[in-house]
Amino acid sequence: MIRRLCIIGVGLIGGSLARALRQKGYCQEVVGSSRRREHLQEAVDLGVIDRFETDPARAVAGADMILMAVPLGAMEAVLRQIRGQLAADAVVTDVGSAKGSVVAAARAAFGDVPGRFVPGHPIAGTEKSGVAASFASLFEGRQVILTPLPETDPDATERVRQMWLTAGAAVQMMDVTHHDRVLAATSHLPHLLAYAVVDSLARLGDHDEIFRFAAGGFRDFSRIAGSDPVMWRDICLANRDAILDIVDGFNEDIARLVTAIRAGDGDTLLDVFTRAKTARDRYTDGTH
Amino acid sequence: MIRRLCIIGVGLIGGSLARALRQKGYCQEVVGSSRRREHLQEAVDLGVIDRFETDPARAVAGADMILMAVPLGAMEAVLRQIRGQLAADAVVTDVGSAKGSVVAAARAAFGDVPGRFVPGHPIAGTEKSGVAASFASLFEGRQVILTPLPETDPDATERVRQMWLTAGAAVQMMDVTHHDRVLAATSHLPHLLAYAVVDSLARLGDHDEIFRFAAGGFRDFSRIAGSDPVMWRDICLANRDAILDIVDGFNEDIARLVTAIRAGDGDTLLDVFTRAKTARDRYTDGTH
Repeated sequence: MIRRLCIIGVGLIGGSLARALRQKGYCQEVVGSSRRREHLQEAVDLGVIDRFETDPARAVAGADMILMAVPLGAMEAVLRQIRGQLAADAVVTDVGSAKGSVVAAARAAFGDVPGRFVPGHPIAGTEKSGVAASFASLFEGRQVILTPLPETDPDATERVRQMWLTAGAAVQMMDVTHHDRVLAATSHLPHLLAYAVVDSLARLGDHDEIFRFAAGGFRDFSRIAGSDPVMWRDICLANRDAILDIVDGFNEDIARLVTAIRAGDGDTLLDVFTRAKTARDRYTDGTH
Repeated sequence: MIRRLCIIGVGLIGGSLARALRQKGYCQEVVGSSRRREHLQEAVDLGVIDRFETDPARAVAGADMILMAVPLGAMEAVLRQIRGQLAADAVVTDVGSAKGSVVAAARAAFGDVPGRFVPGHPIAGTEKSGVAASFASLFEGRQVILTPLPETDPDATERVRQMWLTAGAAVQMMDVTHHDRVLAATSHLPHLLAYAVVDSLARLGDHDEIFRFAAGGFRDFSRIAGSDPVMWRDICLANRDAILDIVDGFNEDIARLVTAIRAGDGDTLLDVFTRAKTARDRYTDGTH
């Protein structure tokens, strides 16, 4: 049970968690904080939070669970604002898509990473953003990765784990660096490619026509290019090394395909496409 | 009205067109032909075709409309098989995803491109293939591009156009080369990237874990990697020049993003991502 949940950054993720926990009766009070008062008022009007403070330092007062759901680029500054304002029993966690940078931000803000700070990442979301897009079942059946450090208090980790389980998620523990590599591969690279493809097409002269002839496959492929640009700028900067590594490997793969196409080497193309289809079909179990 | 429709290659596309036209009472008889007898029997059992011939030369006899729905790599060989077997009033069209190569195949098979051969391409499909996946409404509201040549008989083009309109599609006329460029951008490049990403991930050591942490965004992005590998090998070889051009441009775009990530240049990233999101949101009208 959470007495007072403080959500800093009341958008899709923070709002959905608040909705889920309230629906389960898992927290007595939810206090929100964001930079923009109108978003906070909207969250109150939607019944997502009970009340708000625009100043995060005031918002965290008396809270026993604090969820940092701000863009990665704002993490350090907000952690500095709440430093010294936390209740003695307060657990702080976050939802950032890159964990190394969050750990670095916590270290910079607090001097060292506090034992009651538990880095976390729910693998959930849609290309929508904002509290109006939030819904209680967002995390049901989804994975949440926690990346506690050796110095993290196991009790704090357990409290965060219970919170996410209550919201319907499965919780996995992972090393910070491993998390950042896995996410670079499965999420950050695809977002980068989808943004790049849509931008490439948009810059072609006849782009209204181009998009008119894009079929359903393209619509699905490019859906993630509708994601929040600020959030993704921050992720690219925050997970720079892992992303650059994975893009390097990917560029080699594309170069091999280009060589095969140029040479009319259908066998190589068929090998790669077949391997990919097999992996994709196994991963989705034929259900999607 | 079509008296006898002959479909060579009774899969998702050919099967769906047969279903649609039968549902509208637009053709009296549908004859199918494919390399594999069991697929043809399945199509009969499903009520998609009336009867079949495994030999395309026999299948086209007496048909007034012939739909070539074979992989691009098989086009020339099958056209050679049906040459000399066509009824005097027969119109031949195809559904290949690259038109330059189909025109070349027709020229190679017939000596020149017959006036009653109308190259066509329905921009429709799913990552599924095979006649069992076919359905009558596949083309409803979809675009079909016809690329008649100067020597194409306008009456033949009009007959093909009416057939697709009857199946519920919108029909556009386009130049062969322009078609191949547009499709390289909106379809062939995304498929190549999706195959390459899934294959890259599948070759990472811990790939079961990798896919476990892939969220819904990845599922959508990679859906087209479930497409038929033979079909896509053939498309890559058939539309080689346009694909290589578009991949070149795309590689430059990726290189610019990599440079920005490496330099910590958030402004460039935000510009590109915002432009892409704007284009994507406008293209989908906020409805997808």
